Amino acid sequence: MKLWIDGVLKDVDRARIAPNDRGFLLADGLFETMRAVDGKVQFFHAHYRRLCEGIKVLGFYTEWTEDLLDEACRDLLAANDLVDASLRLTVTRGTGPRGLLPPHDVAPTIMLTAFGMTHEPHTLPAASLTVSDIRRNEGSPLSRIKALGYLDNIMALSAARDAGFDDAVMLNNAGRVCSATAANIFAMTGQRLVTPPLEDGVLGGITRARLLKAAAGQGYDVVEESLGVEQLKSADSLYLTNSLIGIRLVASLDGQGFDTAACPIQLD
Amino acid sequence: MKLWIDGVLKDVDRARIAPNDRGFLLADGLFETMRAVDGKVQFFHAHYRRLCEGIKVLGFYTEWTEDLLDEACRDLLAANDLVDASLRLTVTRGTGPRGLLPPHDVAPTIMLTAFGMTHEPHTLPAASLTVSDIRRNEGSPLSRIKALGYLDNIMALSAARDAGFDDAVMLNNAGRVCSATAANIFAMTGQRLVTPPLEDGVLGGITRARLLKAAAGQGYDVVEESLGVEQLKSADSLYLTNSLIGIRLVASLDGQGFDTAACPIQLD
Repeated sequence: MKLWIDGVLKDVDRARIAPNDRGFLLADGLFETMRAVDGKVQFFHAHYRRLCEGIKVLGFYTEWTEDLLDEACRDLLAANDLVDASLRLTVTRGTGPRGLLPPHDVAPTIMLTAFGMTHEPHTLPAASLTVSDIRRNEGSPLSRIKALGYLDNIMALSAARDAGFDDAVMLNNAGRVCSATAANIFAMTGQRLVTPPLEDGVLGGITRARLLKAAAGQGYDVVEESLGVEQLKSADSLYLTNSLIGIRLVASLDGQGFDTAACPIQLD
Repeated sequence: MKLWIDGVLKDVDRARIAPNDRGFLLADGLFETMRAVDGKVQFFHAHYRRLCEGIKVLGFYTEWTEDLLDEACRDLLAANDLVDASLRLTVTRGTGPRGLLPPHDVAPTIMLTAFGMTHEPHTLPAASLTVSDIRRNEGSPLSRIKALGYLDNIMALSAARDAGFDDAVMLNNAGRVCSATAANIFAMTGQRLVTPPLEDGVLGGITRARLLKAAAGQGYDVVEESLGVEQLKSADSLYLTNSLIGIRLVASLDGQGFDTAACPIQLD
């Protein structure tokens, strides 16, 4: 298997991350998870734009343009004989000296990896959810960008799986619903579609934005507003979204069942 | 310069972190920062114990015993001709497949690095502090262990430095004081020494525990209780503590000045 790192395709077994890479030492970086269909990354422009917004929050920049990285994705897919795949683009602030402060001259590390899709979105069964006791940090800008620090989510997902659920709903410290561990969440009641606002500590998902736009265009009453667990439970249907699964139905939340008819909103 | 990784001393330039190390991809790991004096790591037992508690929170384990890692520290210091140094011990959940879920068989990555001390603790001037607008996550167990995700702290420190301060005080989402970006904080008023409790989203610092114990033994009124910014400002003196700086005095917090006479408490 090959990956792409800093402009070069390499065997995964021969590629090297420096031991003083700040991504490794301090989680000082970001990533994007993307889907490729027929050899083409879906919504690459939106992923690239979100990545650049995140990089700006962190205070450095990358010389890799959208076109060059799009080409790198195609090269990587071809090198691995993949057409339907998930890709991960990882960007860190590169290497640095000891301590928290970034170096003056940042040379970011940029890495692309690709994996064959092990499932098609429509084959995933409706998810059983529980509520995690690990909170998202609404008071950090990192809750709204795709930063490397996913350990809270890892622990929330692992605990949910250990308890027999597919995924966990994460709340913020004010008890407001944010998302699942790697997906945005929507509640549909009648013609009303609600999802939490980014201010509550929510990542601005690419599929989240697509679903909001599509639903508004198709006549639904679309609202971004804070939700409690009880409001989720009283919805007709819940949906999870991310760039790999598209829209996934929810079967239950801590035993409360939902309508699992296919989502009536057509994504563009 | 040499580092120690998974049992082997290597030149830093030749050491390799795998591109699928979960520490790099997801911040799935922990670290310790330790001080060595005369070739010996100070309070290694406490650091090792805290590391193991953190590993337990993450749900894996390491076969590296305290004695073996203590020996590794000595070997690394000798290999770099260092006697007074800072050391960093990094432990990640090792490599894994795509996605958040950890592999069934975890082979942790363990790395030790050492750096000559660029300053002696007593030479650091009293710190000027400001209050960061980035909050610590009191609702995550990671706030109480030394997990790899330090990007909030990096951003808080960078913003403080850009504004002309030495460091920043970080609050939690309830507005309670937690710590500086890489140090615990104490407020002394008369004979009363107060520091926030771990529940507020505070790392259980090794020097924090030493200072609490020493102060109690020397007749001070020692309390762990929640603090607001105004309570910090009304203290006689503020102290910052960590394993590298020991006890550092605070000169000011957003313009409010403090008594910068040496801390009267003697650490053991």
